[in-house]
Amino acid sequence: MRAEIVGVGTELLLGQITDTHSATMSRILAECGVECRYRHTVGDNLDRVVELFRMILERSDILITIGGLGPTEDDLTRDAIAIALGDELEKVPEVEDKLKAFFASRNMRWVESNGRQATKPTSAELIDNPNGTAPGLYCQKNGKHVFALPGPRGEFDPMAFDQVKPVLERIGGGSVIHSRVLRVIGVGESRVEEMLKEIMSSTNPTIAPYAQPMEMHLRITAKANSVLEANEIIDPMEAKVRSILGDAVYGLNTTTLEDAVILLLIEQGKTVATAESMTGGGLAARFTSVSGASAAFPGSFVTYSIDTKIQMLHLESVEKKLRKEGPVSEFAAKHMALATRKIVGTDYGVSITGNAGPTSDVDDKPVGLTYIGIADADGVEVTEHKFRGIRSDIRLRAEQTALRLLRERMMRS
Amino acid sequence: MRAEIVGVGTELLLGQITDTHSATMSRILAECGVECRYRHTVGDNLDRVVELFRMILERSDILITIGGLGPTEDDLTRDAIAIALGDELEKVPEVEDKLKAFFASRNMRWVESNGRQATKPTSAELIDNPNGTAPGLYCQKNGKHVFALPGPRGEFDPMAFDQVKPVLERIGGGSVIHSRVLRVIGVGESRVEEMLKEIMSSTNPTIAPYAQPMEMHLRITAKANSVLEANEIIDPMEAKVRSILGDAVYGLNTTTLEDAVILLLIEQGKTVATAESMTGGGLAARFTSVSGASAAFPGSFVTYSIDTKIQMLHLESVEKKLRKEGPVSEFAAKHMALATRKIVGTDYGVSITGNAGPTSDVDDKPVGLTYIGIADADGVEVTEHKFRGIRSDIRLRAEQTALRLLRERMMRS
Repeated sequence: MRAEIVGVGTELLLGQITDTHSATMSRILAECGVECRYRHTVGDNLDRVVELFRMILERSDILITIGGLGPTEDDLTRDAIAIALGDELEKVPEVEDKLKAFFASRNMRWVESNGRQATKPTSAELIDNPNGTAPGLYCQKNGKHVFALPGPRGEFDPMAFDQVKPVLERIGGGSVIHSRVLRVIGVGESRVEEMLKEIMSSTNPTIAPYAQPMEMHLRITAKANSVLEANEIIDPMEAKVRSILGDAVYGLNTTTLEDAVILLLIEQGKTVATAESMTGGGLAARFTSVSGASAAFPGSFVTYSIDTKIQMLHLESVEKKLRKEGPVSEFAAKHMALATRKIVGTDYGVSITGNAGPTSDVDDKPVGLTYIGIADADGVEVTEHKFRGIRSDIRLRAEQTALRLLRERMMRS
Repeated sequence: MRAEIVGVGTELLLGQITDTHSATMSRILAECGVECRYRHTVGDNLDRVVELFRMILERSDILITIGGLGPTEDDLTRDAIAIALGDELEKVPEVEDKLKAFFASRNMRWVESNGRQATKPTSAELIDNPNGTAPGLYCQKNGKHVFALPGPRGEFDPMAFDQVKPVLERIGGGSVIHSRVLRVIGVGESRVEEMLKEIMSSTNPTIAPYAQPMEMHLRITAKANSVLEANEIIDPMEAKVRSILGDAVYGLNTTTLEDAVILLLIEQGKTVATAESMTGGGLAARFTSVSGASAAFPGSFVTYSIDTKIQMLHLESVEKKLRKEGPVSEFAAKHMALATRKIVGTDYGVSITGNAGPTSDVDDKPVGLTYIGIADADGVEVTEHKFRGIRSDIRLRAEQTALRLLRERMMRS
């Protein structure tokens, strides 16, 4: 089975948004044993979309479209599929009723153009969209399969994984390409490559390192007749990598560093609180992005000014020295970590204070200079860092480093 | 002038890496007045790459390829361009000497396949690559222009902006495509389209709405002989849109909602503090992502458990009722907003409490149910919301809505 993917939207062609859905769909196809030979991007122009769809339907078995299912006149994927397949567009009254009820439930006014989302090519089944208004489409005609998925983030992923992937698995049936990603922290890319030198030339599975902000992803990819068989090829390689890199491997596939840290906290029956200055809640937001985080993360402070550091963290007793040392200092990080641990009553206290630039929000310390404190029952350790990049890079690097330092502290205990 | 962009690489087609270069190149083309009608991705297969290049050279003036210029046998962009143009490949001895010197300077062993990077199609000029080993290519033949750029991140961007863009500006033929994005909050996509009905059919500039999480972007695009002239076409249309949508337009281009809210706070000389439960610091992180935020945002609380709500926010006096109503309640949101405003000493207090799912971190309230409180000198208003989507969507929607509600409150005062 051969497939092609088409992203529809002038905003894609103008580069105003970056297309990440196509890569997601590519991975799904590979895992379903469907060969993807081409991907395309085309603007909101009916003639060109139809021409492209027709070409694809001539040479491939499966066409997957992403985007262009909304209510406006620019959204013409439905029309183009109907024309390319020689279908008519028909209204689906139940869908229109559902849409109208949805609009009413949100006190949104119904306008006629919304009715476009309740139409479908005659050969199409509708794919339910629990996260938005536009249903997806699945057409089977003349031995060809056409899937149409909506573009909005939050609608595309669930539909792709939960509804389209099972169908592709059923109609795919060739040899699969399956990957597993080992996520590595605290070791640089070239050092990892050196440590893994002997196995880097393996051909099945292959190993490819990808640098990520303050971490590394090692992708192990196998070609096999089934996902099960691919996993049997990957398993011993994963074991080998783990035996070489040890605890630097913190997780698999989509596991984030915050997932790994929260899991470790829960396993050890420990809790953490944060006091953030430079990252302004970013570290707390990462902890609480993990479902079930409340077992390990009861609460935290964002103390963005020197006054709130003193007042919210009850640092009146060291106020004079804190003002002298300044908010970006080892002294500030130390007392922030100790105070949040004590006030919230947790096992660990983590603090971040620094200057993320570009304007100096805090004082005259150089942009990138950051202090991170980790407090536990034994006391507090503060480390100094100089992070590079723009404001968002510096904040991200500081969060990553704080998570790594907390994880390392926990692994030692 | 019409162009098409081709990303070459099996790793792209397998979704192992996400293609961001194509979007970059799309923006460059638009700014140079070159119309991009299609983008494509193709794997490392010579026949298919050649077939695609031939098709593009038949219907378009400019072909831009990205990737496939490395030293391995998989890197076949050079070969494919030569075949598609009817050229031979020839060796460029000076480039080979330079490559050998480069390898020697890094103590890397020279292998024969590296010599591939020193070959070029006969009609090609080489584009210098100061950041890597593979030079780029620029071929002019039979009125067609072919550019080949390397894929690695640190090599693509400098070559695209510094060397390819100036050539594209020259051959672009004068007319540019220039856009401005108006960012709109609090009005749905179909409602916006209805309000703007009369101007939606404008052809120069064009107006296109696209939905973003809990906001809308309206792209006004003009075709003109220069960016200056394009702006003169866009200006009156922007004024017209603003006169219709009023305060719903909160910003331009890359301005985020948090940028707009922080700016408004600073303009009005006001400050805000937050008390977050469900969003766990996400709202604070968005405020502090804005450079200069410290003038309006001194600090905030993440109170993720009921105990920290009571303890950190000093809610002991309403503890009994709070425990009865539960953390996801109008009562909780009201007292969280009032307390953070009072403790931090700000003009506004914003609270968010809800259940983001998928496991119930908090209590038996339905996933998505959220209460947002906005407190100021006149008291506190709490609104109830039912957000849809996965955990991260619900958190994002809650943050967006809190920002919108705070902005609306400030616009009223």
